[in-house]
Amino acid sequence: MNKGQKLLKKAKKIIPGGNQLLSKRAEMFAPNIWPTYFKKAKGCEIWDLNGKKYYDFAGMGVTACVLGYADSYVNKKVKLAIDKGSLTTLNSRDEIKLAERLIKIHKWADMAKFCKSGGEACLVAIRLARSISKKQNIAFCGYHGWHDWYLSANLSNNKSLDAQLLPGLKTMGVNKSYINTMYPFFYNDINSLHNILKKKNDIGIIIMEPMRFAKPKNNFLRKVKNLAKKRGLILIFDEITTGFHDNFGGLHLKFGINPDLAIFGKALGNGFPISAIIGEKKIMNKANETFISSTMWTEQIGFVAANATLDKLTKYKINKKNIEIGKKIKNIWKNAAKNNKLEIIVGGIDTLPSFKFNYSNQETISTFMTREMLKYGFLASNLPAVSAVYSDKILKIYKNAIEKVFYKISFYLSNNKKIPLSKKDIKLSNFGRLTG
Amino acid sequence: MNKGQKLLKKAKKIIPGGNQLLSKRAEMFAPNIWPTYFKKAKGCEIWDLNGKKYYDFAGMGVTACVLGYADSYVNKKVKLAIDKGSLTTLNSRDEIKLAERLIKIHKWADMAKFCKSGGEACLVAIRLARSISKKQNIAFCGYHGWHDWYLSANLSNNKSLDAQLLPGLKTMGVNKSYINTMYPFFYNDINSLHNILKKKNDIGIIIMEPMRFAKPKNNFLRKVKNLAKKRGLILIFDEITTGFHDNFGGLHLKFGINPDLAIFGKALGNGFPISAIIGEKKIMNKANETFISSTMWTEQIGFVAANATLDKLTKYKINKKNIEIGKKIKNIWKNAAKNNKLEIIVGGIDTLPSFKFNYSNQETISTFMTREMLKYGFLASNLPAVSAVYSDKILKIYKNAIEKVFYKISFYLSNNKKIPLSKKDIKLSNFGRLTG
Repeated sequence: MNKGQKLLKKAKKIIPGGNQLLSKRAEMFAPNIWPTYFKKAKGCEIWDLNGKKYYDFAGMGVTACVLGYADSYVNKKVKLAIDKGSLTTLNSRDEIKLAERLIKIHKWADMAKFCKSGGEACLVAIRLARSISKKQNIAFCGYHGWHDWYLSANLSNNKSLDAQLLPGLKTMGVNKSYINTMYPFFYNDINSLHNILKKKNDIGIIIMEPMRFAKPKNNFLRKVKNLAKKRGLILIFDEITTGFHDNFGGLHLKFGINPDLAIFGKALGNGFPISAIIGEKKIMNKANETFISSTMWTEQIGFVAANATLDKLTKYKINKKNIEIGKKIKNIWKNAAKNNKLEIIVGGIDTLPSFKFNYSNQETISTFMTREMLKYGFLASNLPAVSAVYSDKILKIYKNAIEKVFYKISFYLSNNKKIPLSKKDIKLSNFGRLTG
Repeated sequence: MNKGQKLLKKAKKIIPGGNQLLSKRAEMFAPNIWPTYFKKAKGCEIWDLNGKKYYDFAGMGVTACVLGYADSYVNKKVKLAIDKGSLTTLNSRDEIKLAERLIKIHKWADMAKFCKSGGEACLVAIRLARSISKKQNIAFCGYHGWHDWYLSANLSNNKSLDAQLLPGLKTMGVNKSYINTMYPFFYNDINSLHNILKKKNDIGIIIMEPMRFAKPKNNFLRKVKNLAKKRGLILIFDEITTGFHDNFGGLHLKFGINPDLAIFGKALGNGFPISAIIGEKKIMNKANETFISSTMWTEQIGFVAANATLDKLTKYKINKKNIEIGKKIKNIWKNAAKNNKLEIIVGGIDTLPSFKFNYSNQETISTFMTREMLKYGFLASNLPAVSAVYSDKILKIYKNAIEKVFYKISFYLSNNKKIPLSKKDIKLSNFGRLTG
């Protein structure tokens, strides 16, 4: 048992589940052998507790570290801010600078508010949207966090959220008063939204991710926007995962569809906790008529980190470069699959590329891949996130490893052999990111 | 207009209310002249945008910075952690260390969970408590943040929260499904809790702050605990403000009353965003049967800062020393009031001392005090928070300033003169911290 697994065993006794995020559990990658804890990380290199070094092709911090780990420029700015006091009785100037920049990037927005985590930002957006719409119910598509308002979708039907991102979510402890307030619709299926709006009463808000795995088809986003406008619904784009990857701002800018409110997180601060809500003045100013307030949101690391991240993204045109890297990664997979006669489906925006093995035992194959890639010095999943630090040299090492591992997988599949993995070593399958 | 006020004007155009926390708005201290923004802070010294230096006796970062601003030891540890990557695909070892310490300090607790902000931690505690109790409704006392579940107390009666901490809270945008799920009771009034439990159905949770202004009387906390036990209710102590000030841990340790769950924040990380929920295994492990998960909660600055803060609090026995400082501050007020024949009421635990002028125009007097104290180089409110960096020398300077300002106030009051302040310069009065 490696040191990480040993520590995890201890952790589970004193922290429910062992950590604070489902997507960072060892069970989501390679149960019983995943390194789980890090000692140090820099660029896309990460050292586990045994001192072993890996290249991270497993999401770069749940897609947050778009500039790479411990980016020197961002860290320098953050450390200077810390030296000057990160939280005081007075406010940070950096929050105004960040608000100015976000509304400059998104010309349709007039104002910004900030939180620390994505879940909080979603709740703020819902509160503001409901303040305007005066209606209680919500049509949603995609993943929007752990809060009661979202999970309550599973109160009346425990499969409501299954087709969104995370199948099998339980509603234990969610306030049951929320029953029948949340209605799911499906990506690229405008009729599913039509149906809800026809059949369900009192819907005032549409919240959705602008994209996950599949690209928008048949003007899907435009149709959603038109429907929202026609019916006077507030449209929220949750850009927590998509923002600042393929382009400098929300992905909606690329699609040319503006929401009424947009939410950012993750990449905005290159891994330092910050989230943002932007929107039109008449909606945002509702924040003055309700109570939305938190001490920790005034702490300045998040503002400073976000400003530094935006500096660097612009200065080096990183979003454009990351698209090129993402395309290369997609090609590495496609070629390795072709060369080894494996069927895979590739999706996602270029900077958040993902693939799945198109076989019924995909979870087993995928776990096998992750385990084998560990041997070649990679943290590797089906969902990497492009980071500016992926050099051609590193991509070449990755390509070689992927080719070898796909070859091994092909060996088992083409010979109708069982992939040598016991059930307890297979990663959890109730986490349907690829189906979202 | 000072530079801070100029910037605030700009901020209000692009950030609703100008910042992210009601308690840090200029209007809560001294409208139109409050410095509002800081350039630098160290110890209890803070520099505004005009480069003017103040001593902070206005809360030390909403009571968070118990070791002082930019504490060298905590900052050193945090900066090392940043150099090593603050958020990665793997987990931080420091969260386990922090969990271990919290349950070692609070022997009744078995496990810990972590978030970034206080509001989040309250929602996690409510979710866990409801998972066990299976009941929907909540009896509460005190302040527990901005989330829907708390604000909904004002849905059926918009004065439900008035006597707790923040009078006048509006429910704009709160989901109306939550109506009639929240029932307030009052501190040191066990009958108010009895009455609720007698009259209202389906109450499964009691959440309260163990203390604010007044000390518990007639075994109030013991009676609440007994009532919870007898009726099988889950008791949550919200120690976000009270924890790690008067003693090393939750204030409930000092009172000898253990809850089922306790929540920490603020002082736990000396101003770096971190919050925690601790509790018994059977309740905490419900987190495995519901979905409570956030990317930003895995970022390691909070864990590292909390561990460093706990190191320093223990090593230098700071909580004990801070009590002595708090007593001195209370005496400074009492003596200055006595010497100048002013009536004040002093309250709060010693490390979170507070006072109010016992006059009908207390808000005017208090604003006048804050304005005058600015001239003497102090950020001063009625609610300072003791920090380890308040030296005897600084306390002496504070004493001299307070004496002079109380003398001036006395001059107006004893001569029946109007305090020379126009209405627009008087701080907002709908923030009843002292009545909680």
